[in-house]
Amino acid sequence: MLTKDQKEKYMKLAFEQAHLAQDQGEVPIGAIVVDNSGNVIGKGYNRRELDEDSTQHAELIAIRQACHKMNSWRLVDCSLFVTLEPCSMCAGAIINSRVKEVYYGAFDPKAGAAGSVVNLFTVEKFNHHPQVFGGLYKDQAAEMLKSFFRQIREKQKEQKLSSQEKDNG
Amino acid sequence: MLTKDQKEKYMKLAFEQAHLAQDQGEVPIGAIVVDNSGNVIGKGYNRRELDEDSTQHAELIAIRQACHKMNSWRLVDCSLFVTLEPCSMCAGAIINSRVKEVYYGAFDPKAGAAGSVVNLFTVEKFNHHPQVFGGLYKDQAAEMLKSFFRQIREKQKEQKLSSQEKDNG
Repeated sequence: MLTKDQKEKYMKLAFEQAHLAQDQGEVPIGAIVVDNSGNVIGKGYNRRELDEDSTQHAELIAIRQACHKMNSWRLVDCSLFVTLEPCSMCAGAIINSRVKEVYYGAFDPKAGAAGSVVNLFTVEKFNHHPQVFGGLYKDQAAEMLKSFFRQIREKQKEQKLSSQEKDNG
Repeated sequence: MLTKDQKEKYMKLAFEQAHLAQDQGEVPIGAIVVDNSGNVIGKGYNRRELDEDSTQHAELIAIRQACHKMNSWRLVDCSLFVTLEPCSMCAGAIINSRVKEVYYGAFDPKAGAAGSVVNLFTVEKFNHHPQVFGGLYKDQAAEMLKSFFRQIREKQKEQKLSSQEKDNG
């Protein structure tokens, strides 16, 4: 297992990725993959709307990049850091790529597949079971998402008001 | 729901994709995505080893292609055909992209996420629930996989024998 300092360092990098998503108007979720020497071999942020592609989640992008970097579909001995609990697709990709350890931030009560809705990491029949550590910097991670959606709602309200003003001449 | 003829036609196309995988030494799994007018908007076959990428499953490739074709991450009113029951990653991608109907061939007792190991399509809390029809041409689909693995084992046996013969001079 990683030290507290290492976990902090890598989660910060995942947050940096989430900020890149936010800067482009995407739901702020970021992920990174680290090899067993501590090298960052994959980075990704949510690009679903930017790319109009439902598979462009932060984790999937980071995993694909890590596979290409390692020239292997097996990410044995690698760790994945992500600011939000993985969904089923991303949890499945983590299992498929044999990632050793998963560290995630906020819990996702709507789609979380690491315990919040289902837990794919503990299904006995699956051929790989990563170690999973949830709730890392969860307040910061949750606040980032809440503040993003708050801003979206405020913008929508402003647009509504401005269009009403136009209608009223 | 589609007619018997339509289902046969689209499953045949999924099998064609699976054959493309087999021709390149990959586990033969193929998938296609069809829009609500019956146009094939995504095709894919398993390329995990070819691309050394754990996310390169048939379904994911077909979904990504369909998203690009539609210029939308939402594949509402689309159907996905695949020769093997989707794994968690692919079932998650199907949910994320709001695919309406899923037709699959062989059951996967080791990793199937449409009922064989877990059933992600019936999890109440998830925000999308496709209609799922499993076991379509399941004997043909299962035989294709069995025959592939039989050939692999035979090749390995031959290689072992030939190396033993060399060792014996």
